[in-house]
Amino acid sequence: MRIAQLSRESAVPVATIKYYLREGLLPSGRLTSPNQAEYGPEHLSRLRLVRALLDIGRLPIATIRALLAEIDGPDPNLHQVLGRALRPTAGARAEVPDNGEAAAELAALMARQGWQVKTDAPARQAVAEVIAGLRSLGLHEFLDQLDGYARIAGELAELDFEVLGHTSQPEQLVHTAVVGTVLGDVLIAGLRRLAQQHVSGKRFGQQPG
Amino acid sequence: MRIAQLSRESAVPVATIKYYLREGLLPSGRLTSPNQAEYGPEHLSRLRLVRALLDIGRLPIATIRALLAEIDGPDPNLHQVLGRALRPTAGARAEVPDNGEAAAELAALMARQGWQVKTDAPARQAVAEVIAGLRSLGLHEFLDQLDGYARIAGELAELDFEVLGHTSQPEQLVHTAVVGTVLGDVLIAGLRRLAQQHVSGKRFGQQPG
Repeated sequence: MRIAQLSRESAVPVATIKYYLREGLLPSGRLTSPNQAEYGPEHLSRLRLVRALLDIGRLPIATIRALLAEIDGPDPNLHQVLGRALRPTAGARAEVPDNGEAAAELAALMARQGWQVKTDAPARQAVAEVIAGLRSLGLHEFLDQLDGYARIAGELAELDFEVLGHTSQPEQLVHTAVVGTVLGDVLIAGLRRLAQQHVSGKRFGQQPG
Repeated sequence: MRIAQLSRESAVPVATIKYYLREGLLPSGRLTSPNQAEYGPEHLSRLRLVRALLDIGRLPIATIRALLAEIDGPDPNLHQVLGRALRPTAGARAEVPDNGEAAAELAALMARQGWQVKTDAPARQAVAEVIAGLRSLGLHEFLDQLDGYARIAGELAELDFEVLGHTSQPEQLVHTAVVGTVLGDVLIAGLRRLAQQHVSGKRFGQQPG
């Protein structure tokens, strides 16, 4: 198909497709004349992945380029690819001046859970910031239950990989992992609210007023 | 204490405190002269709660005013107060044209979990939007596990209320609930990333590359 049809089928504007081609996020089409290229279904699925990484995963272009190069390589290292793709997205944060203590607390928590994660994983920094924030706000009752929250997060990750187990093709795997993780965060937060309201009703619902 | 000291102790600027006084988010001080008011520890703790509701909970002023009026009333309905305070915050979303089908799917899911939640709860809309978004992106493997995610969300909510169980004073309860829920979302998302990396290492870590 020509670029105009690729644009219609993917709902991505032609100018954006050309930008992805220039940035190396989409492989060139097959030239049928000096000014005309032909695109196939592999371009459609790649476009779908690039949009998910950009719009839903909020990954920087350079990270996406490196990630796609790894996927397209001869023997993709899926652990490394997922590590790059599943970065924590920004969330509500308390102001945190220093979190060395929180980082040590997190390291001890991870050791208790038996988690082996690289020391430079961005999620470590993100979690240490939340721990430091909760401490500065005096939420000690909450911090006392960190092991409980970590155990539940472990259940979530196991379920995530059960979902991923149905996928073996690297491009599809990364797509499902990124969308499932990022939209999954929103889903889990929403389901947590609904479950809280159910529990709140059971605990406090009998009150008059 | 005078307003200047209240500002120093709370780290909230005097102009902001005056704004909260005008908006009815903070009760007036005790007048000691026509131009001078005296503030006490109850103003400090109220300021702390207002900041948490605004900065962390991202609640609109009108909602906070209603919530504080309920807390200060003779017999606060804590179920209603928590329902108002624990709104879902905005997250990454796919574009969703219509989600009537997703809303019905969510209602069935909640019935299977035995959750009783008001039909106009904002979290219902938020979750239905994510379900519709996952469907439009073709993540059927993920949607097939919705009951698993709901079950885990239920565990989170039970743990949340265990944390809240240590608190009985309504103002403190709302503070812990809002901060613990909103920062808790970020914490859980980060812990989920760390656990995913651990599971990913176990599954894919042996690969060369």
